[in-house]
Amino acid sequence: LVGVLGGMGPSATVDFYDKLVRHTPAGRDQDHLAVVIWADPTVPSRQEALLTNGVDPTPWLEDGVRHLMASGAQLVVAPCNTVHAFLRPLMADQPVEFIDIIDTTVAAIRARQLRRVGLLATDGALASGLFQDSLDAAGIEWVLPSPEEQRDLMSIVESVKAGRSRPILRDGLEVILANLLERGVGAAVAGCTEVSALFGGDRPHSEVELIDPALELALETIARATR
Amino acid sequence: LVGVLGGMGPSATVDFYDKLVRHTPAGRDQDHLAVVIWADPTVPSRQEALLTNGVDPTPWLEDGVRHLMASGAQLVVAPCNTVHAFLRPLMADQPVEFIDIIDTTVAAIRARQLRRVGLLATDGALASGLFQDSLDAAGIEWVLPSPEEQRDLMSIVESVKAGRSRPILRDGLEVILANLLERGVGAAVAGCTEVSALFGGDRPHSEVELIDPALELALETIARATR
Repeated sequence: LVGVLGGMGPSATVDFYDKLVRHTPAGRDQDHLAVVIWADPTVPSRQEALLTNGVDPTPWLEDGVRHLMASGAQLVVAPCNTVHAFLRPLMADQPVEFIDIIDTTVAAIRARQLRRVGLLATDGALASGLFQDSLDAAGIEWVLPSPEEQRDLMSIVESVKAGRSRPILRDGLEVILANLLERGVGAAVAGCTEVSALFGGDRPHSEVELIDPALELALETIARATR
Repeated sequence: LVGVLGGMGPSATVDFYDKLVRHTPAGRDQDHLAVVIWADPTVPSRQEALLTNGVDPTPWLEDGVRHLMASGAQLVVAPCNTVHAFLRPLMADQPVEFIDIIDTTVAAIRARQLRRVGLLATDGALASGLFQDSLDAAGIEWVLPSPEEQRDLMSIVESVKAGRSRPILRDGLEVILANLLERGVGAAVAGCTEVSALFGGDRPHSEVELIDPALELALETIARATR
């Protein structure tokens, strides 16, 4: 039974569950994975906790993990990059298998033998250094958008969370990707699940290869749950 | 807390959760509904139980409802029409609010003052008479696809469950809708969540108005959970 700690945000959870279902080798309902999803919208903002000394979301996450384990989950995943800043220390103490979205993504980048990637992540995730540290440890160079593009990126992420029109937001991302390409960066990590949700599995127009942590997490979840 | 009895099938659950998230009036993660989804793929085929005396799925459904209630769900929904043949008697005895997808859909048809609708449902759902009885009781005339089209419809539903290419399957449905229109039927119930999942909120090319039980269930869930 796969336990999904979701709701951060809800549309990213939908996107992850969609990828999990689509990529499961299944010919009928009964071939799919058993899944329990816990989506608690009252978890305080991870951005505010990381950036402006806001409320620590850890107790809410603990509660969610407890619910998933009580339901019988043997494997826990969270389709949100930023929350891993809080989940990593928390899950180290839990008697349940946990698949780390950051580690899984960096392993996928290594497997593709990429030496240099753009990093599209929230201000909070960047402040936590999660991706940067893991990429550094793997010897992979990372490139951030310009400060102005980073502000655009944050506003796009907030708009996805608010359910705004997707095609326009996607165009905004395409501009950021095109600028990365101009700087010689041919691949980028969609290091915020709202970014991957926006593409929903489609390829960007620009030639930048988008590494999708939500997809990598789904594939790794299927691999571990079915072995 | 909204409890979703899902996994029947998994892609229909993804579609319902997507509609629930998109239609919730929310400006940020914290405005969304608390949701727990229980997707157990081992529930025996509802089609076989209804059509060929297969295993009764009721014990699996009871187990799912028990899990949702243990998680604190105050409201239970199941984004699958066919399963309501088993859920209706089961939920009558449970101390938790239940929103019936069939009743909700028929209420939506009445609200639109439609007098006649096409009915796209699985063989199992048709055999149970769930939709036909509710439509009859509401004085709404219903029209079925031809036997050949019904076979096509079943094969499309199975293909969605197996995760096959969506555009081609959608074309198959468009043919069935166009034939209904030729027979003077201007609206049709997508009475199987795989059918609505295939359109994913888009309008069909033909002029037939598609009534989407998954969407109606999502809207009613949001209305009840936020009042």
